[in-house]
Amino acid sequence: MHFAVLIFASVAAVTTFALDNGLMRTPPMGWLAWERFRCDIDCTNDPKNCISENLFIDMADRLYEDGWKELGYVYVNIDDCWSSKDRDKDGRLQADPNRFPGGINKLARYMHDRGLKLGIYGDMGTHTCGGYPGTTIDKIEIDAQTFADWEVDMFKFDGCYSNAAEQELGYPLMSKALNATGRPIGYSCSWPAYQGGLPPKVNYTQLGQICNLWRNYGDIQDSWSSVLSIADWFFENQDVLAPAAGPGRWNDPDMLVIGDFGLSMDQSRSQMALWAIMAAPLFMSNDLRTISSGAQSILQNKMIISINQDPLGIQGRRILKEKSGIEVFWRRLSNNASALVFFSRRTDMPYRYKTSLSKLNYTTGSYKVTDVYTDQTDVLKDSTEFVVSVNPTGVVMWYVSAPGKLQYHPFIRGDKLHRQTYDAKQSNFL
Amino acid sequence: MHFAVLIFASVAAVTTFALDNGLMRTPPMGWLAWERFRCDIDCTNDPKNCISENLFIDMADRLYEDGWKELGYVYVNIDDCWSSKDRDKDGRLQADPNRFPGGINKLARYMHDRGLKLGIYGDMGTHTCGGYPGTTIDKIEIDAQTFADWEVDMFKFDGCYSNAAEQELGYPLMSKALNATGRPIGYSCSWPAYQGGLPPKVNYTQLGQICNLWRNYGDIQDSWSSVLSIADWFFENQDVLAPAAGPGRWNDPDMLVIGDFGLSMDQSRSQMALWAIMAAPLFMSNDLRTISSGAQSILQNKMIISINQDPLGIQGRRILKEKSGIEVFWRRLSNNASALVFFSRRTDMPYRYKTSLSKLNYTTGSYKVTDVYTDQTDVLKDSTEFVVSVNPTGVVMWYVSAPGKLQYHPFIRGDKLHRQTYDAKQSNFL
Repeated sequence: MHFAVLIFASVAAVTTFALDNGLMRTPPMGWLAWERFRCDIDCTNDPKNCISENLFIDMADRLYEDGWKELGYVYVNIDDCWSSKDRDKDGRLQADPNRFPGGINKLARYMHDRGLKLGIYGDMGTHTCGGYPGTTIDKIEIDAQTFADWEVDMFKFDGCYSNAAEQELGYPLMSKALNATGRPIGYSCSWPAYQGGLPPKVNYTQLGQICNLWRNYGDIQDSWSSVLSIADWFFENQDVLAPAAGPGRWNDPDMLVIGDFGLSMDQSRSQMALWAIMAAPLFMSNDLRTISSGAQSILQNKMIISINQDPLGIQGRRILKEKSGIEVFWRRLSNNASALVFFSRRTDMPYRYKTSLSKLNYTTGSYKVTDVYTDQTDVLKDSTEFVVSVNPTGVVMWYVSAPGKLQYHPFIRGDKLHRQTYDAKQSNFL
Repeated sequence: MHFAVLIFASVAAVTTFALDNGLMRTPPMGWLAWERFRCDIDCTNDPKNCISENLFIDMADRLYEDGWKELGYVYVNIDDCWSSKDRDKDGRLQADPNRFPGGINKLARYMHDRGLKLGIYGDMGTHTCGGYPGTTIDKIEIDAQTFADWEVDMFKFDGCYSNAAEQELGYPLMSKALNATGRPIGYSCSWPAYQGGLPPKVNYTQLGQICNLWRNYGDIQDSWSSVLSIADWFFENQDVLAPAAGPGRWNDPDMLVIGDFGLSMDQSRSQMALWAIMAAPLFMSNDLRTISSGAQSILQNKMIISINQDPLGIQGRRILKEKSGIEVFWRRLSNNASALVFFSRRTDMPYRYKTSLSKLNYTTGSYKVTDVYTDQTDVLKDSTEFVVSVNPTGVVMWYVSAPGKLQYHPFIRGDKLHRQTYDAKQSNFL
């Protein structure tokens, strides 16, 4: 049976009902405060890092001046702990007056004046995860209208302090309420992450109709083990998740932690490559004021960004798990092109992985391959045996093009590729 | 009861019987092939990285020309997979003729001509871990003499393919045999690692009498989780391990993986700091031909090296585990000085840790503190409250001096400090 055909049919069906705000036809890109700055509200002792309008202005300046904006990183997103502990006399959310003296609308104008966009955060429930006022069902309309009045461009709706029934009501209602304001506001739903991320508790057809992106899984932390566990979960469940993604509706494996403290350069290249394969939103959470040139060059890699932003919006897949600890990922791209990632789970030394494009399901012909991190190119026949040297916890990533002809078989050919499973014990076998 | 007094008494007693080859009065420093290059013997397809005389000549050239030798990194150590699969007609080990055409003695001369030293590897058992000829009991004398004839300077004796009884016989016999050659050969014993690393199976008094250093625990891998698990094991067992160390006899938590693929810059600074606190041998296993300037500057940090190489040779300890995930380490140094490391297990954001020297058991007085990574200095009274900002999986490391006066109480004051235990759940509490 042609599994691929079924998936394409299902993609088409979902597209018809996608959230009709016209936004995020490619995965959104920008900066989000949470992972790096958390709920630091101590502006007295930590003024440069506390959640305040200064922090978002600083990051906006960096996005605008350091070449990020032109590459697509346009969202500047506030997360938890921005608001006052109390609503105002009219029941509306209000920013903390000491940390955001200009208010959210002033910040939005600051972004818009620079061609950037502002995102904000709320929580479906009685309180946000950090203990600030939440948005109960009765507050959905007023909060949506408040964000629209402030000219906010994106809204992340977290799910602490609510139960499944309230979430089932609240997430669709907020979608309607945002649309009803008339302002296009990108809508990020944490709903599936609170329901385990998988059917039958999670209905991805519905999510595609009401949200532009959704968090399927737990929060990322600044560690390789966190990045790897997230990537593993998304690729283990790719048969469920990949069909749900497409223009305007994206799975969100959470922020990029590249430029922070926990990833090596190779691991940073891996996160960027795997997030691009997943057609994931690219929200950096780092300090753009002090980022290293190495991390910046990974995040600003034009070819990887263009793979991530491919207009077809087809989420890629893991196509091979070798016993050696090498895994191969593949994403179909427009212009008859594709992306390949060779990833190593090993923790010993660079592994010389020998394969050919035909073994990776490419059809007969010649292909131009470009290593996206080194810019080196080569022309390979499908039958040519080649070796890629993959660093421990690192990747080799290729852009593969073959103008004018079909490149590959439907991406899973039989179940041959599924039978090769990774044996962790072998990765340090010597 | 003054625990410290007991330890100092025991240290003195052991010193009397320490291995009498006069070597390694401070922890040995150099380069060791294993972690980075493993058993890569494929010189046809991977000529720059295979275990061959060219690899060791390349690394010797780097040590000699790039400023490593002057800092103390003088050992160039061969590990497994160097030998022929068969002994020669006289029963002696011989180097693989294709990969070491000049033989080991030529390599030793190459090192000595440059003020470097050569180390080699063998295995107490029928085979090495990689399947090469091992050193059974009957071969101990001939192998020791072979290494001496080759003018080798250090010998690592692994323990694959032997049982506890054979090891109990073989490790002391090899010590005698090496001494009997008349050539000073530093002796690294893997014995305790094969016996779980702890008494009663491991007798650290005996180890100090027969070995210059010993591997207590499993092999390091190129990952932060490996580095952290090793450091945790050594500090969990510090009451057993620290008294065993001293001039000429060292616990060996295994190689530095700084400059490889798996550690971030902060994690690299942490490994260097914690290995210095532990008075650990500093054997790098990396590619000195391509090492980044960032990694090189960590490994070449003069102040940390001088802490590691302090002539008193007293192994430091963890003195505090905070619920916040901050841990404090302390090592007594000569000249009435000491070293402090503030380490963060967190994976969220830099943590502002507030304390004072008096809370860390320093006595009344003023101290000069120098941040070994930034070179910034400060003068602090014992009672002065200060804040150190510790990055996730990173460290702040201080050299603390106070000429002319006692600096600190015996290092554990009561058991107050033991009662604060780290709660992993709290590290990502937001």
